[in-house]
Order: sequence, then C-alpha cells, then structure tokens
Amino acid sequence: MSQSNSVNRQLVLASRPQGAPTADNFRLEQHPIPEAAEGEVLLRTVYLSLDPYMRGRMSDAPSYAAPVQINEVMTGGAVSKVVASRHPNFQEGDWVLGTTGWQDYSVMPGDKVQKLADHIANHPSLALGVLGMPGFTAYMGLLDIGNPQPGETVVVAAATGPVGSMVGQIAKLKGCRAVGIAGGEEKCRYALEQFGFDACIDHRADDFEAQLKAACPDGIDVYYENVGGKVFDAVMPLLNSKARIPVCGVVAQYNATGLPDGPDRLPQLAGLILRKRLRMQGFIIFDDYGHRYPEFATQMGEWFKAGKINFREDITDGLENAPQALIGLLEGKNFGKVVVRVGDDA
Amino acid sequence: MSQSNSVNRQLVLASRPQGAPTADNFRLEQHPIPEAAEGEVLLRTVYLSLDPYMRGRMSDAPSYAAPVQINEVMTGGAVSKVVASRHPNFQEGDWVLGTTGWQDYSVMPGDKVQKLADHIANHPSLALGVLGMPGFTAYMGLLDIGNPQPGETVVVAAATGPVGSMVGQIAKLKGCRAVGIAGGEEKCRYALEQFGFDACIDHRADDFEAQLKAACPDGIDVYYENVGGKVFDAVMPLLNSKARIPVCGVVAQYNATGLPDGPDRLPQLAGLILRKRLRMQGFIIFDDYGHRYPEFATQMGEWFKAGKINFREDITDGLENAPQALIGLLEGKNFGKVVVRVGDDA
Repeated sequence: MSQSNSVNRQLVLASRPQGAPTADNFRLEQHPIPEAAEGEVLLRTVYLSLDPYMRGRMSDAPSYAAPVQINEVMTGGAVSKVVASRHPNFQEGDWVLGTTGWQDYSVMPGDKVQKLADHIANHPSLALGVLGMPGFTAYMGLLDIGNPQPGETVVVAAATGPVGSMVGQIAKLKGCRAVGIAGGEEKCRYALEQFGFDACIDHRADDFEAQLKAACPDGIDVYYENVGGKVFDAVMPLLNSKARIPVCGVVAQYNATGLPDGPDRLPQLAGLILRKRLRMQGFIIFDDYGHRYPEFATQMGEWFKAGKINFREDITDGLENAPQALIGLLEGKNFGKVVVRVGDDA
Repeated sequence: MSQSNSVNRQLVLASRPQGAPTADNFRLEQHPIPEAAEGEVLLRTVYLSLDPYMRGRMSDAPSYAAPVQINEVMTGGAVSKVVASRHPNFQEGDWVLGTTGWQDYSVMPGDKVQKLADHIANHPSLALGVLGMPGFTAYMGLLDIGNPQPGETVVVAAATGPVGSMVGQIAKLKGCRAVGIAGGEEKCRYALEQFGFDACIDHRADDFEAQLKAACPDGIDVYYENVGGKVFDAVMPLLNSKARIPVCGVVAQYNATGLPDGPDRLPQLAGLILRKRLRMQGFIIFDDYGHRYPEFATQMGEWFKAGKINFREDITDGLENAPQALIGLLEGKNFGKVVVRVGDDA
C-alpha cells in the first residue's frame, strides 16, 4: 500500500540489530493520522532521508545521541508538505524540513521545522542532500577542520555519496587536487565526469593501495574520514606531515560486532599522529556547527545558483522499502544520496 | 676519567638498539679538542640534557628527524661555557645553549647557539628543563592544542618529569583541576606537594584505572599525551565530549619492537574520536612552534621570577654515565628532569 489520506503508516524499530540490520529489525504499523494542536503543524512526509548515522540510533551502545527505543518510530529527517497549520508562520502547502521520522504523517511544533527557501523548494529533496545536512557536514568538516589550501591534496571516500561528492566539489572550488574513492568503475567514472574529481580509485581493485598512492604523488594533506576500515589503512602511509583528518563517520565499522583481529594498531596510530603531527578530529555536525548554518546556507546557495554544484540522488519509492534502502546504504549499494519518496510531491 | 682540558671525549652511536637500548649501543671515544674558526665558538659542555626523543634518533625508522648515523656523536642539547670565541657576540666564560651533542667540547657557529638570559645563567641547567625545550613543549602543547578552560580537568603522565610537572603547574595557573600520573608513591606525593597537582595516581597500582576514574569525577577535558600505553587505555573511557589530546610523545612505545597482540583497537579509537568529537593532534615543538618561543620565554620567565614555578632535576655525574641515564629514563627510573653534569660549572 502507498501513502493515503486516511492512515498513518509508521516504521518502528522492532529489535536491535546484531551486526548488519535486517528487515526483521523493523515493523510497519498503521495508526490514525494525528491532529495538530495550537502552535503545531500537521505534516505529510514526501521525501525521507536515509543516512549512515541511523545505524547508530538502532543500537543502544553509548553514543553522542540517544538511541531509538524499541517500538518507537525510526528517526530521520524529511521534507514534508504542510497539511494543516495551527502556527502563524506556516500555511497549507508549504514545504518544510524537520526530523519527523519514518512515517507518513507527523505533528510538529512550528518552531521545530523550517520552511524551505525558494531555490530549494523547486527541488525539495535537495534539502536532505547537498543543500542540507550532508552538504553542511561536508562543508564544515572540510573547511573548518580540514582547512584545505590551494594545491593541497584532499582525499575522500564514498565519492559519489552526498558528503563525499560535496567534499570533492568544495575542494576543487578551493583550488585543491581532489582524489575520490568509490566502489566500482561506474561510480569512479561518475565522480570524475560529474563531480570534477582529479582521480577516483575503486576500493574493490586488487591494487587499490598502489592506485591510491599513484593518484596522490604529493601525498595527502586532508583526508576527510567518512568510512574507516581499509580505506583509512591505505591512506595512513600517504599522509603528509601536518595533515588534517576531519572524522565525520566510519561507516565501514557501523555493522561490526567486535574488534578486528590483531595486532593492535592503536599504538601505531598514536605514533603516527605524533611523528607526522597529524590533527585528527571528530565532529557531530549540528552539535558543533549549528551556529554556522546560515553561513553554509548562504555560500552553498550562491554556488548552487551559479551552477557550480552537481548532485546525484538515489531514490527509492515507498516508505515500506526504507528498511531495505538503509541496509543497502550501509553496504555501499547506493549510488548517490539515498532518499525515500514516501508520498506524492504535488 | 672526567672532563679534562686536553681531550675531547665523545659518546658515539655504536649500533642501533633492538628494543631497549643497552650500553653496547654506545662507544666512548677520545679525540683532540677542536679549534674555532672565524665566526665560531669553542664550547665546553657543562650540562647535557637527556630526553625521550633521543630513543627515536637511535633508530633509522622513518621519523620527523634524521637518525644519528652509526659512529656519529649522539645528538643532544646542552649548556656550555665559551672557552674561546671568534664570534663578536660571545666572550670567554659566557653560558650558552646549543645542540652540541654528547661530548666534552664542541665548535659551533655563533649563530647556532644562544646566550642564556641572566635569570637562567644563575641556574644554567634550567635552560634544559622548565625554562627550555621541555617547558616550551609543555606550554605550547597544553595551551595551543589543549586550550584548557578554568574548571576543566587536565591529565598528564610522568607528572614529576620536566614536561608533566610543567603541564600540571600551568594547568593550575589556568584554573584547571590537574591530575597527574607517576610511577610510585614517592613521585605521586612529590607531585601533590611540590607541583600542586590536585591528585596523582600511581600507574603501578593494581586498581590504577579505578583510582584515575575516582580522581576525575567530571571526566577528562584535556589529556596531555606523553606516554601512551596503558595510561592512554585508562584515559580513553574517561574522556569528555570535545576533549583535546595534544600528543607530545609516546614513551611507553619507544622501545617496542613490534605491535602488541590484538584485537586491533585502531577502529575503536577512530570511533571514539568521532563519537566524542575528540581533537587528537601531534606536534614537534620547534618545528611547529619555534616562532612562538619568545612568547614562552617571556611568560615563563615572569612566572619563574614570581616564584610560581617549581622544578626537580635528576642529575647524573660524568659523560660516561649518560648511556645508563638514558636507558633509565626510558624505563621511567628518573625522578625529575634528567641532566648529565659533564664538567665543572665554574
């Protein structure tokens, strides 16, 4: 069944995954459509964003954010249309962005959602990608922690994903050499042709390390970390002195159920940070940089309107298919920003 | 034999250590005393500094600085007296600081040594400790990378060493809670009584981790890393969100001949950096902060003259005993800044 005007479908967390999530970890429920109280808006979800951080919310391991509870609606950002407004800033038909979760309808306080700017409302799903959280994540991590200088080499994985593709494009706008990493020849070709990377290496290649080295003849000055795992292993020996490593995610580890076998390379990393004088720094985008969102929105809006920003979306139709889309995302099966089209955008 | 005015004793690197250095890795040689050419000064070494970084120079593994070559004089900073000057800025009897190595006499270009300020010349070995490189290392790493705020908790190991003791004292001057770690009850007591640490934990205690946790009831905001190993392991779970980790050294690893057994905790560290939004950054003091030495010299000089800085030296007599003193330093057997009194200070 698809979105209707009589039922609110919700995907709730049925159980916590051990390792990779499976369809059994989710449950589709049907509930009445809620009503907005004074100061609230009733929203109909149109595009739901799927992002790697959601794997963390499915676990109850300590993290920077509280987990989704069992039987609770899965969390997630989405763009919605206002169905009914009891808040003076919104009216029926407005496009808004909010953390409304995996469901057809939601009721939100008016001050917890934001209306989309005109240039975004023309393509509302971009509020979930390059013009939203992933773009902001790329922008702040690369520029504030990575601090790329003209002529430096910037490396990023998931080069056709929403974060990686923006890191590459911003690196090029800043005069850097941008080297991407992606899974498969098709994605690598796309990264070169559409996102302007100077090189893109297939991490599935047998000689991945050698290819990466060849693509970085002057070493690596900024490694934007979003995957971890074997990509980080290949990057380590190529890092230049005083290289910066913004740590935005380690997707390769999210489904891990334990630590890899030894030897223990933790001391090796600490020694490398010392000898090469690396700066390695994690960040959680809205917690650390929320106050700089207006700067991002202005700059990215300018670049976007000037035609300097390309993007690719990987759209799945139907809320009921969101679990499989998230499972695929965590395995790198997506090709572009993963968005679920939950309902009609008219 | 001791320092004479007829022979230049030199300690050269005889072989590279496998694991911990031994006396066999050094060789004492006797050579004629060299002569200064125009623009140079002939120096008599009085105090030789021994520091953990010297272990790195004995190895030919890739590092930030070139290794000492086999049969070459061991490198090291020292304070010396000018014996003969052919440079206009120096005259016989001046106290100078320079990288003159493990030997009785050296010839240096005048622009490669610096005259000691008056308040240091009264206690010249301090130019090798709190008023020199180790003090500078503590100062810049703590203040520039650690950025400690009043009320925050700063943790540092080797709390009675020249770097750790200064980190603790500067942390207190900045209004922080200072928690030290040292080897043995005597050092811990000294850290409390002489350096003003709020707490100091014996890393040899069976319940070291529990004691450290109890000493940091509000978690750790700045961990000044100079040892690595089990201290870092105990610190990791106590780190607060947005904690800073200046990495100045990992002495516990310097004698390692391979990586420890698994599991491989490198991914765990990367995950921790992400979730806790840590900033972990290595630095090499003169390479990264040489331009800020005047600021340090002024500020530390003020604190020192105001009686706000305590120090402890661990002095070994005789150049011939330098190898054993370095071996002990790497095992944590020293109690205070390790200085070798090579010759008479008259």
